[in-house]
Parts: sequence; structure tokens; C-alpha cells
Amino acid sequence: MDYCLVKLGHMVEKELQEDFKEHAVALLEKRGVSLLDIADAACFLQKDYHEGLKADDLMPSVHKVLEKREVQFAVMTACEIDRLAEEHQFHDKELERLLLNDAPLYGTDEVLAYGICNLYGSIALTNFGFIDKKKYGVISRLNKAGKGSGTCTTFLDDIVGAIAAAAASRFAHEED
Amino acid sequence: MDYCLVKLGHMVEKELQEDFKEHAVALLEKRGVSLLDIADAACFLQKDYHEGLKADDLMPSVHKVLEKREVQFAVMTACEIDRLAEEHQFHDKELERLLLNDAPLYGTDEVLAYGICNLYGSIALTNFGFIDKKKYGVISRLNKAGKGSGTCTTFLDDIVGAIAAAAASRFAHEED
Amino acid sequence: MDYCLVKLGHMVEKELQEDFKEHAVALLEKRGVSLLDIADAACFLQKDYHEGLKADDLMPSVHKVLEKREVQFAVMTACEIDRLAEEHQFHDKELERLLLNDAPLYGTDEVLAYGICNLYGSIALTNFGFIDKKKYGVISRLNKAGKGSGTCTTFLDDIVGAIAAAAASRFAHEED
Amino acid sequence: MDYCLVKLGHMVEKELQEDFKEHAVALLEKRGVSLLDIADAACFLQKDYHEGLKADDLMPSVHKVLEKREVQFAVMTACEIDRLAEEHQFHDKELERLLLNDAPLYGTDEVLAYGICNLYGSIALTNFGFIDKKKYGVISRLNKAGKGSGTCTTFLDDIVGAIAAAAASRFAHEED
Repeated sequence: MDYCLVKLGHMVEKELQEDFKEHAVALLEKRGVSLLDIADAACFLQKDYHEGLKADDLMPSVHKVLEKREVQFAVMTACEIDRLAEEHQFHDKELERLLLNDAPLYGTDEVLAYGICNLYGSIALTNFGFIDKKKYGVISRLNKAGKGSGTCTTFLDDIVGAIAAAAASRFAHEED
Repeated sequence: MDYCLVKLGHMVEKELQEDFKEHAVALLEKRGVSLLDIADAACFLQKDYHEGLKADDLMPSVHKVLEKREVQFAVMTACEIDRLAEEHQFHDKELERLLLNDAPLYGTDEVLAYGICNLYGSIALTNFGFIDKKKYGVISRLNKAGKGSGTCTTFLDDIVGAIAAAAASRFAHEED
Repeated sequence: MDYCLVKLGHMVEKELQEDFKEHAVALLEKRGVSLLDIADAACFLQKDYHEGLKADDLMPSVHKVLEKREVQFAVMTACEIDRLAEEHQFHDKELERLLLNDAPLYGTDEVLAYGICNLYGSIALTNFGFIDKKKYGVISRLNKAGKGSGTCTTFLDDIVGAIAAAAASRFAHEED
Repeated sequence: MDYCLVKLGHMVEKELQEDFKEHAVALLEKRGVSLLDIADAACFLQKDYHEGLKADDLMPSVHKVLEKREVQFAVMTACEIDRLAEEHQFHDKELERLLLNDAPLYGTDEVLAYGICNLYGSIALTNFGFIDKKKYGVISRLNKAGKGSGTCTTFLDDIVGAIAAAAASRFAHEED
């Protein structure tokens, strides 16, 4: 981030802001993740506290989370890293191997995920920890896909878990 | 990160741990950053509290910070992203453009940096905020290089600032 | 936090939500901090990027930050701890001494502050680190007051810095 | 935190560092939490990755976590807040009521807990989220005690969960 350019950059990015949401959603879909998948995971996290809660009820929250610029950038960065790894484009073959194996102690993917959760406070972080261990729904699917040859979901599964955790927390707080 | 593989992965990574430190240091040097540059920035952050403090005094702290696996992975990831952007290897040309312009509101680089600072507590975070705004020494040099055509230092300048901030905090606490 | 009670608690707290904002603002004022003081500090952080920016321009952002429940709770908790320390009500006299001396390596006050900054992303964290070191305006005033006998501002100065940093970041992003 | 006093304060606190560990352990025991309780919770988090793991195996990690000054301060602060709330010493009766009811959306207790987890990286955060939802062992016991009249464990249960999560993560990484 470069502060000297903020004045100019501010205007430039402002214009493009809406595009980044659509862009991020398109990237997620290209990687096999629909917004309803995410709403379903968010619903899993909240359903004990609201009788009869459905995935659809969480859709507005998922949309709101994806309107945050920091979330859009995290999605874009995560999708790009995974894709470059699975196409063996990395110069650093050690790092490529770690990502392709979803190495257990590699935690940079979760650092990115926490960057999303933090925007929604402490409940979002707790939600993320829980769904990351439980591997519910889309997160389980992504995780399994990442084990197959030729697919890397090391960053994506955490980013998707973080958006679900953030949406669930936003729903609980009924805040922006 | 995949927990199911921890038992096996643990041993595999353990063996390679030392290599990752050397590997991370080599990557930094390849990108024009010496450990003494980082120690100098850490010294800048601590010198008001210790009379006659020299960059060399901070070198053991810089080494200790780089022994943490999460730091090594952050360095590796940051260097790779910058390099792939400057070689125009990104599929996502929007993201590539943001990184090449060090777009002011793109904050994923700092999220990675906070992943390092957090390991050393609240003083490290404050130190990072300060040096990131002041752009002292190596951070200023990297920042300027990133403005030139053909070089991307969007992630690296923040990672280097974070290691310096962490080393300064570690020195203040005299802890691991 | 207790999840089992969320369903009931949700309604209870919802009702009271507005009161907590007014309550938090009243607590700040009782401790000598006006919202304009905070807007002025936020303006200091943003003025390089917007010509002719005035404290008043930041007031809507300060209000928005204070509408977040996590921010209200942080303000309430910080004010209470400071007050109990200065009234020597602590059982733990070691802790009371640390707070009354604003002990340099005590960092729990900043952890609370980061809980606020995190809600507004990476720029807020950087802003906080900068203003915490620079001690601009109200933060400097609080800091000095805390050195006098009989007043404890150990938590308050960080919380106020965090709200200013968050408001400045919100203004930069033009987001909720 | 006040940086101007660091030079002097550094020496003063250094001397007292060991005492704060003992002090923190004594406070935990006074509130009914033994180090073995914490090691048992840490073991619960790690046992799937190490055959035949016992609580005792985690004791060195629990001790190491408690040697960190930021952890000691978090324990001291958490115990004091809970105790002052249960003795109805708060001026702010709204806040006192929230703490005595362990209000579901009050998240400052978890912010303090994350201050501990962050020191041990992303696995510690995930571990915390999981154990906070699962309420294993000592955390369940504290949580139930907090529901009884006359006892407040709002901060303590999260701090204990965070130390367990940190110890488990430290064990996984075999690092300081």
C-alpha cells in the first residue's frame, strides 16, 4: 500500500469498486463456489440460534461481506495464488510444493482469512475456527478437491470459510 | 492448512525447517534486502529507548524472528507474488495492475505483514504502523524501487517492515 | 461470550443498542474526550490525502465507528478499568501499579485498541501505530493527564487513538 | 503503554518478570484453574495428530506460554475484571450486567483472548475458535460456574481457552 498516491488512487478505485465485487463473485464461481454455498455454510454456523433458519436468509449478509473492498482483494489474491500454484508457475518450487500439498503448518492462507474475519469482530473469528475444523459443506468439498492431483484450493477453502464466518457474524450483530 | 495430514506432515516439515530459514534469507537477498538492512530499520525503532544502540545489536533479534516458520512462509509467499506480478504472469489482470501500481487501498500485503507482527505482540504492531508511514531506510528504498517500471515490491516492503517491527519488539521484551 | 443464550440475548441487546452508543459517548465526555477531539485526530491522519480537510468532515465517520457494538463495549470496558485503577479498587495491587504507571511493556490496552482497528482493516491498524507514536492532540493530552497523580488513562488513550484511526480508515474507504 | 518510560521501565519490569508468571499461575489457581486443566484442554486439541498423547505432554508448552509477559498481563487483567464484576464494584452498571450475564454479543473478552492466540500464529486462532464452541473440560466447567449466581467467568473462560489453544499450537510447531 502506498499512501502518497491515495489522493489520486482514491478516485480511480472508487469508480471500479462495483466491478471488483462482480469480479470477485465471478472468480469464486469459476473456482466452483456459489454464493449460495457460502450462505449455506454461514447458515450452518447460525442455525442453533435461530429456529428454522435457511441458507437464503443469509444471502444478504454474504452480499454485504463481499461489498467490502478488503474482502474482494482477499478473494482475488487467494484465487490467483491457488491457480498459479496448480499451473506450476511458481519460481519457488519449495513454496509450490507446500501449497500443492496443503502443508499442515503453512498458515499464510489462514492469515489472509483472518484479514476478512477481523472486519466482523470476535464472533467471526470464533466461527472461522469452528468451521475450519468441522469442514462443513463447501469447505469440505474444496478441501477434498485440493487433495486430487491438479487442483490447488489451499487459499480458497480458508477464504470461503472466512466469508461464511463473517456473514454469520454480521447476521448475529445485524450491523454493516 | 490441512489438519488431517499433520502427523505425517509434521515430520516432513521438521526436517526441512532449517532450510526454510536459509531459503527465506536467500530470497530476501535476491530481492535486494540484507539482514543488516532489517536490523538497521529495527534499530531506528528502538534507538530512543537505548542510548548508543547500533544496528548490529538488533541482528540476533532479526535472526530469531526469521527462525519462526510463519515468518519464513510469509517471506516466501510475498517474494513469489511480487515476482509473478512483475513478470506479468497473473491471469487476473485487474489484480496484476493493482499490485504493479501498489494501489493505495489494496491492503492484503499489510494483512500478511500483520501475521508476522502479531507473533510479537502489541508493540510490534505499533512499530509497524510507525515505520510503514515513516518509510525509513530499506523500506523507503523498496518503496521507490516499486515505483520504477519493471519492479514490484508491494508485498516485500510490508514484510520487511514487519520483520523489523517484530525484531524491535522482541528486543524490547527480551523474549522469544 | 455465551452462545447458548444468543437467541434470547439477541433481542434483549437489540433493544438497548442505541443506548450503548449514547452511553459510550457520555463516558468519553465524562473522561474529557469529545467526539470533535476524536474527529480532529482522525483528520490529522487523513489530511495529507485530502486538501483542506477539516475535523468536521470526519465527524460522520466518528459517529459510524461508535455505532458498532464492539466499539461501544471496548469504550465501556476501557473507561471502567481506568476508573477502578485510579480509585485503587483493584485487588491485584501489582496490576494496579502497572496501570497507574502506564507501564511501557503492558500491552493489554493496545490489544483492546486493535479490536477496534481490526474492524476497519489494515489502514486502521497502520493509522493507529502512527498516532500512538506521534501522540497527536487529544492522545497527547490524555497521555500527559495519565502521568499526573490521581488520573489513569492507560486504556483510554489507546481506545481514543483506535477510534480516530478507524474513523480515518473508514473515511478513506468510504465504506461502513 | 507509554514509550517515553521504556528505558527505565525495561529494567524495572525485567526484574519482576519471573514473579508475574508465578503471580498469574496463582491467580488462575485461586479462580479454580490448574495448569493441568489447561494442559488437558490443549491435549484435547492435539490428540488427533499424536497417538497416545497425554495432558502431561503438553505441560511444558503451557509453562512456556505463561512465560510470555503479554500472556501474564492478560491473565491478570481478566481475573481482575471478573472479580470486580462479581463483587458489584463497577460504576458502569450496564457493563456489570453484561459481564454478569456473559452477554452473547459482548466480545471484548475474546479480543483479549485473541491477543494471546495471535502470539502463536494461525493454528492457535483456529484452535481457540474450536474449543470456544466445543467448551471442552475446564472451559465448560468455568462456563457453567459463570451461570451460577455470584460468579463471573466471562473473561476467564476465554483466557483459559486461549492459553490452551496457544499451548497446542506451540506443541504442533515445536517452537518458542
